[in-house]
Amino acid sequence: MASLNADLRQRPVQQPVSVAETNSDDSSATALAQVSASDSDEDDLPMKPSKPSQASDKTSEALDSALKDFSPRWRNWVIRGIFTWLMIFSFAFMIYLGPLALVLVTFALQIKCFHEIITIGYIVYRSYDLPWFRTLSWYFLFASNFFFFGESMIGYFGVLLAGTDMLRPFATYHRFISFSLYTAGLVGFVCSLVKKHYLKQFTLFGWTHVTLLLVVAQSHFIVQNVLEGLIWVLVPVSMIICNDIMAYMFGFFFGRTPLIKLSPKKTWEGFIGGAFSTVIFGIILSYFLLQYDYFVCPVSYDESKDALSMECERSHVFVLSQYNLPETIRAFFNLLGIKKTTVSVYPFILHSVALSLFASVIGPFGGFFASGFKRAFKIKDFGDTIPGHGGIMDRFDCQFLMATFVHVYHSSFIKVPNPQNIVQSVLMLKPEQQIQVFTMLRDKLLQRGFIENITTTTTTTTTTAI
Amino acid sequence: MASLNADLRQRPVQQPVSVAETNSDDSSATALAQVSASDSDEDDLPMKPSKPSQASDKTSEALDSALKDFSPRWRNWVIRGIFTWLMIFSFAFMIYLGPLALVLVTFALQIKCFHEIITIGYIVYRSYDLPWFRTLSWYFLFASNFFFFGESMIGYFGVLLAGTDMLRPFATYHRFISFSLYTAGLVGFVCSLVKKHYLKQFTLFGWTHVTLLLVVAQSHFIVQNVLEGLIWVLVPVSMIICNDIMAYMFGFFFGRTPLIKLSPKKTWEGFIGGAFSTVIFGIILSYFLLQYDYFVCPVSYDESKDALSMECERSHVFVLSQYNLPETIRAFFNLLGIKKTTVSVYPFILHSVALSLFASVIGPFGGFFASGFKRAFKIKDFGDTIPGHGGIMDRFDCQFLMATFVHVYHSSFIKVPNPQNIVQSVLMLKPEQQIQVFTMLRDKLLQRGFIENITTTTTTTTTTAI
Repeated sequence: MASLNADLRQRPVQQPVSVAETNSDDSSATALAQVSASDSDEDDLPMKPSKPSQASDKTSEALDSALKDFSPRWRNWVIRGIFTWLMIFSFAFMIYLGPLALVLVTFALQIKCFHEIITIGYIVYRSYDLPWFRTLSWYFLFASNFFFFGESMIGYFGVLLAGTDMLRPFATYHRFISFSLYTAGLVGFVCSLVKKHYLKQFTLFGWTHVTLLLVVAQSHFIVQNVLEGLIWVLVPVSMIICNDIMAYMFGFFFGRTPLIKLSPKKTWEGFIGGAFSTVIFGIILSYFLLQYDYFVCPVSYDESKDALSMECERSHVFVLSQYNLPETIRAFFNLLGIKKTTVSVYPFILHSVALSLFASVIGPFGGFFASGFKRAFKIKDFGDTIPGHGGIMDRFDCQFLMATFVHVYHSSFIKVPNPQNIVQSVLMLKPEQQIQVFTMLRDKLLQRGFIENITTTTTTTTTTAI
Repeated sequence: MASLNADLRQRPVQQPVSVAETNSDDSSATALAQVSASDSDEDDLPMKPSKPSQASDKTSEALDSALKDFSPRWRNWVIRGIFTWLMIFSFAFMIYLGPLALVLVTFALQIKCFHEIITIGYIVYRSYDLPWFRTLSWYFLFASNFFFFGESMIGYFGVLLAGTDMLRPFATYHRFISFSLYTAGLVGFVCSLVKKHYLKQFTLFGWTHVTLLLVVAQSHFIVQNVLEGLIWVLVPVSMIICNDIMAYMFGFFFGRTPLIKLSPKKTWEGFIGGAFSTVIFGIILSYFLLQYDYFVCPVSYDESKDALSMECERSHVFVLSQYNLPETIRAFFNLLGIKKTTVSVYPFILHSVALSLFASVIGPFGGFFASGFKRAFKIKDFGDTIPGHGGIMDRFDCQFLMATFVHVYHSSFIKVPNPQNIVQSVLMLKPEQQIQVFTMLRDKLLQRGFIENITTTTTTTTTTAI
C-alpha cells in the first residue's frame, strides 16, 4: 500500500498539468489549493507555476530551435500550423480505415480527455492520499462506457447481437447489467468514504460525474454520428477545425475588436471571418463528399454477405432535388438574361449551412466554457499532448458540443423511422406475437384502405370459387 | 438590483439549513466555507451552528410540549411516528386520486428536493452575490424537466400527442427543442461568468448538474414507473418506508452492533430485522394489491372512449401461475401427509422478493450516501419541511435509487415489446412505408412458416378458382 501510494504521488511529476503564470484575477483557486494542502498530511506537492507546455516536448524543442529566427508570435503560429496539418492527415487516414476505426479512435480520445480532466481534479484537490478513489473514477468511466457504447451497438447491430448465443444475454439485459455495474461503484464509493476526507471525496465524486456527463455522454454521440454515415462526422469536425483556423487567421491578420473577456485573444473580426469561411468551406466539402456512397451511407449489417456494408439506397437528403427559385432571385436572373425558375441542389448542402452556423456561432461557446474552466482552476492547458495546441481536451472542447448538436439535428430533421428496423424489431418477438402484429397491422391497413388490392384479390378469387 | 441582492441575502435566514453541532472530524468543510467567505466581499454571513431542526417548527413545538414527560429518545420516536403515518395517509390519498395526481406529486417533490440541495450549495459556497446564477439553476431545472417529462409523455401518449395539431411539433421536435433550451442555458452561463468568481461559478455549475443527474433524472423514473402501473410505485415506495421503520424499530429495541461509521445510529440488528420484515411485508402488500386491476394496469389511452384507461388484459406476471415444487420441498410435504407437487403463485410475488432484497440491502446505501454528503457539508438535515424527518430529500434519498432499480428491473425482466405499440409506430409512418412494412413482414413470416395458413387459404381458393 505504501509503495502504491508513493507511486501515485509521483504521477503529477511525470504528467505535469501546465499552470498559467500567476494572474491574480481569481484568488480563490490558489486559496482553495492551499486549503486542500493544509488538509492533506505532511508532504508538499505544490502546483508550481510552470512555463506553458509548448516547450515541454522533444518534437517542439527541435522545432523551436529550427524556428528560432522567427518572432515568438510567428513561431507559435508555425508550430500550431504543422500540428494542425498532422492532425488533419491522421484524421483523414482514420476516415480511410473506415467507421469502426473512427469509433475506436473516438473511444481512445474520450479516455484521454477523461484522464486530462480527472488529473486536474486530483491535482487541484490534492487527493494523492485517496488511491481507492482513483480506481473508482476509472471504474465509473468503464461502467458508463459499457452503458453508452452498449446502447449504440444494440441500436445499430441489435439483430446481429441477438443472433449470437454468447452476446444475446448482454443485449437483452444490457441496462440491468449497466445499472448493476454503476450501483456497485456507488456502494464502493460509500464504503471508501474516510471521515477525514468526506468533503474532498464528495467533491471529486461530483467532478467525476460532471466529466462523465460532458465527455463520455457526448463522445457517445460522435459514435452514433459515425454509424449514421461518415459525412455526419466528417463535415462537422472539419467545420470546427476550419472555424478555429480561419477565426485564428482572420484574428491574427485583421483582429482589432475584442470579443469576450474570457478569451482575450478572440476578436470580432476573427469571429465573423471564421463564420463566413466556415459556411463556404462547409458547402464545398459537402459537395465533394456527396459524390461518394462511402461517406453518405450508414453502417449496416448485410445479412446476405454476413458482413458490415457501406452501400445503401441514398436517403433523400443526399439526392439532387429541384427547388423553385424565389420570385426576387428569378427576377434578378431575368435581368442577367438567364431563364431559370428552378435549381437543383442536394438538400444536404442546405443542412450544411445550418451546421456551419452552429459551428461558428454557438460552437465557440464550448471553447469559452473550457477557457473559463481553465481560468477557474488556474491552468493554461488541459495537458501537453499536442505541441502548440495543449491537451486533447483543448482541441475537443467545441467538438463535443458540435457532435451533440449534429446528433440532435440528425434525429430531429433527417432520420426517418426505417421500415427495415421496424420489421426487424417485430422478428425479435415471440412467434405468436409476430403473427399478432401481422394480423393487427393487416386489419388496420385494410381499414385505412391502404392494402385494398390484396383483399380485393382474395375476395374476388373466393367469389369466383363460389 | 440592489434590493434583489438584499432579498437574496436574507433567504438563508428565512430558510435555515440546520447545521450539525461542530464535530471537528472534517476541517476542510469549514475551511472551504471560510475561503469562500474571504473571497466574497465585505458582508459576513457565517454558517452558524444551529440546533437540529425538530424544534424549529410550530407543529412540532406543540407536540414537544404535549410530549414533555417522555424521554427525548421516546419523544423523537413519537414525533417521527406521527409524521410517518401522516405521510403514509397523504400518499394513500394520492394513490386514490390516480396516476396523474401521483405524477404531479412526484414533480412537486422533485422541485423541492432540487431546491433543498441547491440551497445548500448556495450557502456552502456563499454565492449571494451571484443572483444571475440562481436564475440559471432554475432554468436548467426547467430545461431538464422539459426534456425528461416530455420523453415520458411521448413514450406513453405519442399517438395521442401526434393527433393534436398544437402538440404535434412538440412531440416531433422534442429533443431539438430540449437541446436548444439547454444550449441557451449554457451560453447564458458562459456570458454570466464574472472574473472574480470563476471558481465559485464553475463549482456551482457542477453542483447543479450533479443535482439534476441525481434528482431530476431519477424522479423521471418514478414517473415512468407510475405509468407502467401503480403497483410498480406503490410496492417499492412502501418497501423503503417499511425497511426504514422496521430497521429503526429493530435497531431501537435490539440494536447493539454498529453497521457503518457514516450513520452511527444504524445497527446490524436493525439492518437484518428490516430486511426480513421488508420481504414479508412486500409479499403481503403485493398479494393484496394484485387483487385489483386498478393497481396492475398501465395507464393507457383508450381510443374508443377518448380517455385514459386503467383497465387492461393483465400481463402474465399478474396472473396466477403453476410452479412445480422442488424435490426437497415435495418430500417435506409428503412427510406432513400433503400430496402437493405444484403450487399456484402470482409471478409478481417472486419479483417482489427481488425488490425487497434490493430495498433492504442496496437501498440503504442511498441513505448512507446522503449521510456522507450531509457530513461532508456539515449539515444535519437537507431541510426542515417534515418535523422529525428533516427535509423532503432526507426521506427521498433511498427512494430515488429504488425507483431507478425498479425501472431497470421492469424494463429488463418484465416489459415485453407490446405488439400494439409496434403497430401504432407503423401507423405513424407515411402510407407507402406502412405498406412496405406490411409486405416485408408478410414475406418474412411466410419464409419462417408462421403464417402458412393464410397463404394456403389464398392458394387453395386460387386453385379452386382455376
